[in-house]
Amino acid sequence: MKKQLRSPFFVVNPKAYLYGEKSLELALEADKLSEKYDVDILFTAQYADCYRISQATKKLIITTQHMDSLVPGRGMGYILPESLVESGVQATFLNHAEHPVKVNELVEIMKRADELGILTIVCADSIAEAKAISILNPDIMICEPTELIGTGQSSSIDYMRQTNDAVRESNPNIKVLQAAGISSPEDVRKALESGADATGGTSGIIGAENPIEMLESMLIELVNYREEK
Amino acid sequence: MKKQLRSPFFVVNPKAYLYGEKSLELALEADKLSEKYDVDILFTAQYADCYRISQATKKLIITTQHMDSLVPGRGMGYILPESLVESGVQATFLNHAEHPVKVNELVEIMKRADELGILTIVCADSIAEAKAISILNPDIMICEPTELIGTGQSSSIDYMRQTNDAVRESNPNIKVLQAAGISSPEDVRKALESGADATGGTSGIIGAENPIEMLESMLIELVNYREEK
Amino acid sequence: MKKQLRSPFFVVNPKAYLYGEKSLELALEADKLSEKYDVDILFTAQYADCYRISQATKKLIITTQHMDSLVPGRGMGYILPESLVESGVQATFLNHAEHPVKVNELVEIMKRADELGILTIVCADSIAEAKAISILNPDIMICEPTELIGTGQSSSIDYMRQTNDAVRESNPNIKVLQAAGISSPEDVRKALESGADATGGTSGIIGAENPIEMLESMLIELVNYREEK
Amino acid sequence: MKKQLRSPFFVVNPKAYLYGEKSLELALEADKLSEKYDVDILFTAQYADCYRISQATKKLIITTQHMDSLVPGRGMGYILPESLVESGVQATFLNHAEHPVKVNELVEIMKRADELGILTIVCADSIAEAKAISILNPDIMICEPTELIGTGQSSSIDYMRQTNDAVRESNPNIKVLQAAGISSPEDVRKALESGADATGGTSGIIGAENPIEMLESMLIELVNYREEK
Repeated sequence: MKKQLRSPFFVVNPKAYLYGEKSLELALEADKLSEKYDVDILFTAQYADCYRISQATKKLIITTQHMDSLVPGRGMGYILPESLVESGVQATFLNHAEHPVKVNELVEIMKRADELGILTIVCADSIAEAKAISILNPDIMICEPTELIGTGQSSSIDYMRQTNDAVRESNPNIKVLQAAGISSPEDVRKALESGADATGGTSGIIGAENPIEMLESMLIELVNYREEK
Repeated sequence: MKKQLRSPFFVVNPKAYLYGEKSLELALEADKLSEKYDVDILFTAQYADCYRISQATKKLIITTQHMDSLVPGRGMGYILPESLVESGVQATFLNHAEHPVKVNELVEIMKRADELGILTIVCADSIAEAKAISILNPDIMICEPTELIGTGQSSSIDYMRQTNDAVRESNPNIKVLQAAGISSPEDVRKALESGADATGGTSGIIGAENPIEMLESMLIELVNYREEK
Repeated sequence: MKKQLRSPFFVVNPKAYLYGEKSLELALEADKLSEKYDVDILFTAQYADCYRISQATKKLIITTQHMDSLVPGRGMGYILPESLVESGVQATFLNHAEHPVKVNELVEIMKRADELGILTIVCADSIAEAKAISILNPDIMICEPTELIGTGQSSSIDYMRQTNDAVRESNPNIKVLQAAGISSPEDVRKALESGADATGGTSGIIGAENPIEMLESMLIELVNYREEK
Repeated sequence: MKKQLRSPFFVVNPKAYLYGEKSLELALEADKLSEKYDVDILFTAQYADCYRISQATKKLIITTQHMDSLVPGRGMGYILPESLVESGVQATFLNHAEHPVKVNELVEIMKRADELGILTIVCADSIAEAKAISILNPDIMICEPTELIGTGQSSSIDYMRQTNDAVRESNPNIKVLQAAGISSPEDVRKALESGADATGGTSGIIGAENPIEMLESMLIELVNYREEK
């Protein structure tokens, strides 16, 4: 059974900036904040770190940044979904602009994720791509203009609305994440006001002077928004 | 500093046949056998399982089946070498026939492995490929006729001698592993008699009626061979 | 402006079985048959052969078996769509099971094809994939069970109907091609009776004792079917 | 039988900047200059343009920018080497930084090129890569610092000497091409004085105010150098 997410939720995606101890430290703090503010947080980690982090945390939804469609058996060096599940992983990003996958492979990986109860967060670079992917029933979609990733510049609220609408018109069951260039509580509010189910960040958090304070202030803004509704 | 391997050594490579608890169980037994027979054993695991296994074992050389050249920073879903080192990984396979890599990528990954003290076990499909790769100074090489992988049929001793010689003529510092279709103690002896520094197996061990007994009988044969020399 | 195709049409796809003179010979015969039976025929060729064949034929719709999204400028060794257009190419296969492409790349290539007036014939391995791709507005779709390709065994009429329906429900503008394992005039009739707009073959034609006679008898069956309607 | 090249020779590599008529026009001029100055010129073209150009020229060595290891038979959309030979192609670039290939694939492609008498011009990004590739016996090698490609800035003469020496020490039969950022007759002289067998250009020629004049002045400098020796 896949984890049920309560909107608005939040994604902490340290990409490859953090690993090992440093990743664990941030995860422990994020876990406390998840409990304190009663917000579902997806936390991405290196494959090698998932077990440690899932063992040490209670609330975080441990998330990988990709996975393969490999089935138990032959195959050297690919990511076996079953190994993730046993390590406490509950969600995975797929088809990120930094890790695009083939059409047939995406279909296969999503089938495996469904079999194993892994939430899928599938990325699209353009509205055309988002519409096509939405037909495959991902749990969560991100539609980010590739140019903005990692720039600390967020999408315009118009672009966010347009992509939220495109995904939902095509498939109303999908939750929409807006996370391009989120680097302040104001960006969090903007993303949620666009109608997104979730937001989150990478460099906006990791690169902040005090990452944990920044994460907390973003979550407070998310909670404020949730209460106003 | 890279781990120094004592020849003859052994490789247990469960590929994606085992993961989680099952992988850990075999690792624990292999670890005991490594101590009992004083043989260096490289044990390959899913990325997600390396930390658990390295924490639970004392002697095994934890080995991944591939790694990427990613450096800390951006990059979604690739294998960060630093995350492996922090999880206790000391060696990695590269360029296996089931996971071939680009020429420039192989150079980059091997550079990263050298920086981080990770042993490299690089595979080649043909003698021409083996000679080219040997120039890049891998720690260990495997030259396996692609057709034999996973068949339970071992290379002929002539082919083994030919590939051992090709690698060593080109670069005498490289240790040579012969592991295609090793499924009995006799295959272990044949591989070592060909002049290889190491041997090991996948389906020959995992697919045996009693994998641990098979592994032990292979190690006993390796020890017999070692003592005869 | 893209070429307007009249259903039922036919595809002769020699893959890499033919090239140079041999490909040209079959193309010349197919061109005569296209005129004789007034049937639109898409003829696939190696990139290097397209110019020769387009210069020597009058009716054939010269088709490539893939193309890249490369734009004029840098880029070594990829297929520049503009070079195809100048060589007389009017259509291209994309995402064949023997040449799968990434999701974002497929979107880009189809955009380039639309800009340049090249018909797109996009392949899918499964119904899920076919539905997703149909959202991208290809001109023609093929949904073939990967297992049947090159076997000389055609899809069941039920599978054909199911895939025809899946594509058309999702996007009624797309023409549907059923071409898996077509190796006789009976297979041609079966494909058209399933409701497909087109059919065609590779090994069923090239591997026939007399390829040109086989092609003609397939076209005669197509014409019979067309006249019965 | 492979074409025998006479050093110093020259490479005109329009990448994807030119195609169709424009590519043919430059080829015709280059062909005249090849005859006038008695210099072997390799001219790269889009796959689709090779036949036209080889038919229209007498001296040029028609060169592709990549080719695949595909053999006649199945396989959709890859570059069949036999189709290139029948179109007049006599040489191919391989493993360019803009088109890197896998280790095992490079070995296969080079085997096919040797079978079919196609000259191989293999690229390396670093000295380590160049040494490894030199073991595979390419006919010509290029070792270019990836950062300089397309910048109009040439390698330092020290870097050129170092790479020339690295390749020749490893395999004295290989001809060495220095072509990074060549944009003037002075750059041509510098490359040849470094000890290279050949030089050539892309943007330095195509982007010149008058490409044909630039090409001629580069060839004149090459001839001057040849005569001084």
